[in-house]
Amino acid sequence: MSNLGEMGEFGFIQYIRDRVNTPESVIKGIGDDCAVLRVGEQQLLISCDISTQDVHFRRGWPTHAIGYKAAAAALSDIAAMGGHAQWMLVSVSVPPVLEPEFLEEVMEGIQDAAGSAGAAIVGGDTTRSRTTLMFDIIVLGLPHQGRCLYRNGARPGDVLAVTGFPGVAAAGLHAVEHGQKAGTLIDRLWYPVPRLEEGRWLTERTAVHAMIDVSDGVVQDAGHIGEESGVGIALQSALIPVDDIMHRYADAAGQNPTTWSLSGGEDFELLVAIEEASFAGIQQEFQARFHLPLTRIGECTGEAGALTVDGAPPVSTGFDHFRDES
Amino acid sequence: MSNLGEMGEFGFIQYIRDRVNTPESVIKGIGDDCAVLRVGEQQLLISCDISTQDVHFRRGWPTHAIGYKAAAAALSDIAAMGGHAQWMLVSVSVPPVLEPEFLEEVMEGIQDAAGSAGAAIVGGDTTRSRTTLMFDIIVLGLPHQGRCLYRNGARPGDVLAVTGFPGVAAAGLHAVEHGQKAGTLIDRLWYPVPRLEEGRWLTERTAVHAMIDVSDGVVQDAGHIGEESGVGIALQSALIPVDDIMHRYADAAGQNPTTWSLSGGEDFELLVAIEEASFAGIQQEFQARFHLPLTRIGECTGEAGALTVDGAPPVSTGFDHFRDES
Repeated sequence: MSNLGEMGEFGFIQYIRDRVNTPESVIKGIGDDCAVLRVGEQQLLISCDISTQDVHFRRGWPTHAIGYKAAAAALSDIAAMGGHAQWMLVSVSVPPVLEPEFLEEVMEGIQDAAGSAGAAIVGGDTTRSRTTLMFDIIVLGLPHQGRCLYRNGARPGDVLAVTGFPGVAAAGLHAVEHGQKAGTLIDRLWYPVPRLEEGRWLTERTAVHAMIDVSDGVVQDAGHIGEESGVGIALQSALIPVDDIMHRYADAAGQNPTTWSLSGGEDFELLVAIEEASFAGIQQEFQARFHLPLTRIGECTGEAGALTVDGAPPVSTGFDHFRDES
Repeated sequence: MSNLGEMGEFGFIQYIRDRVNTPESVIKGIGDDCAVLRVGEQQLLISCDISTQDVHFRRGWPTHAIGYKAAAAALSDIAAMGGHAQWMLVSVSVPPVLEPEFLEEVMEGIQDAAGSAGAAIVGGDTTRSRTTLMFDIIVLGLPHQGRCLYRNGARPGDVLAVTGFPGVAAAGLHAVEHGQKAGTLIDRLWYPVPRLEEGRWLTERTAVHAMIDVSDGVVQDAGHIGEESGVGIALQSALIPVDDIMHRYADAAGQNPTTWSLSGGEDFELLVAIEEASFAGIQQEFQARFHLPLTRIGECTGEAGALTVDGAPPVSTGFDHFRDES
C-alpha cells in the first residue's frame, strides 16, 4: 500500500489490534466504543475522541458549540456501553495567536456537555500547534448495574433498532455548509445529545444483546456490530425513520434524505440488537419512557460477514478518516 | 489579553482550574502530573500527553523514536506519582497521504515504550489531519503500596534533589538541530527513560514529601512544587550535576551547559523534596540501588512564592507552550 488512505482507518485499527497483548486486567480492549478495565473490584470504562478543525468542525462555527460537540461525541462512547460518565480529561493543541476568549468559550462548551452528563473535568494537556486546532477528549465511566453492552453480543434473528432520527446531524452539516446560520438541524449538529440515560435503560434489559453509537453512519456502525458479533446485517432503508424537518429540508435542497439516514455520522443515536420476541415490548416501553422512537431498521442474519441494504451491498458505508474528505 | 501567548500555558491551566468542580471521587484533579480518581476501593492514576510535529518532534527523526518518545513522556507522569503504569490509549491525527509503514513504525515505538513499562495498549482514536502529525497518549496506572507522591507535600527546610543529569535531552536536541545524526545525547532525547522504578522506590520513603518529573525544565518544575506546596524554592546552579558527554559537547559547541541543566525539558528525571535529616541516607541507598545520582540542587524555604537561582529570580524558567518557539 502506498498511503494510509488505501489502508483505511479501520485497516489501521485492525493492524494495531492484531499486535497488542491483552492482559487479564483488560476486559475489553480495542474494538468497542470504550475499553473496559478491571480496577480492583470495579470495571472502568474509558474512551478518547479527537476533534480536529476542518474534519470535525470549522473555525467559523460558534465557539461554544465546537467544545460542546467534541465533548458530547466522547460522552456518547460511554452511552454506547450503557455506562455512567464520571470524569473527563481535555487535551488541547492550539495556535498561540488565538485570543484567550476563544479557548475559554470552547472550554465552557466542553464543561457544559460534561456537566449535563454528570462528568467532572480532572485533567488534560495543553500544547501549541502551528495552525490547526485539535481537541482530544478522554472520558471515563462506570458500568450501570455491573453490565456493559458490547458490539459483539448480537445473534442471528435479532432485530436491529435505532433510537431517534439518524441523519439529522449530516443534514445540519449540509445546511451549515450551504450558508444557513441556525435551525433545528444545525442545532442537532452542534449540540448532539449523548444518549446516556437511554443506553443505561437498554442495558437493564437482557434481551438487548449488543449496542453501538452512530458516529460513522448507521450502515457502517451496524457493520461493526456484524463483524464483532459474527452475524450478518440486513438493513431496510425504507424502515429508517426520517425526521420531518430533515425531510422538508432535503426536498428543498434537492437531496435524498435516505443518504443522510444511512451514512450520516455524528448523530450519536444508539443502534441495538434486540431479541425478536422481546422487541415489541421493549420498543413500547422505551418510547413511553423517553418520548423518542426506537425503530426496527433491519435484522441480524446467520450469514456472518454479510452487510446488505435492501438486499444488496451498500454503495457507501459511511465515513473513513483516511479515505474521505469531510 | 490579545492572545494566548500573553496568557501563557499556565495562565490558561489556572483559568480552567478555577472553574471546575471537584467531586468527592476526585482525590487529585488539575494541578499534578496525574489526576487521581477513586474507583471503588482503588485509586486510579490517569494522565494524557500530546506530542505534536515541530513542537515535540520533527518529521525527519527516526519514526520509531517519534513514537517511543511520545509514550515515554506520558509514562513519566505515572513515574512522577510513584505509580505502576497499567494501560495506555493512543489518539493519532495524521495526514492520509502518509505511508502505512510510517504509522506502523510510530506504533511500534509506542508499543516498545509501553511494553518496557508493563503497560498494555487498550484503545485510542484515529483521525485525519491536513498536514500535521499529532499523538495524544493517555496512560492509566495504580499507586504503589497505596501512596502517591504529589507536588504539594514539600515543607520549608526540605532538600530539593534531582535524579540523573537534567539537560541531556536539551543538549541532544541542540545536537540534532545542528546536524548530528546519533550519539549518547541524541539517544537521551529520542529514547528517554521514565523513572518508574525510581519513583516507586522514592514513594516508599515517608521522608520524601513531594515529587514531579522534569518535563519543562528543572527551574520551572521546581517552581511547580513551590507553588503547589506553598513554599519558596532556592536552587543553586553549581550543584546541578552536569553529564560528562554534555559538558564536552557544550564546550565544543560554544554553549553553556548550565542553561540546559536549568531549563532543558523532556529529560523526565525526577525532582523530589526530601526531609533534610533523611536526605544523606536516602541518597546513599538510592545511588547504590539504581547506579544513578540523586543530587541536592537546592532547598525549600519558608518564603512562599519565591523562586530563586543562586539567590536571584531566574532569567528564564523553562518552556511555555503558548509563549516559546521550540
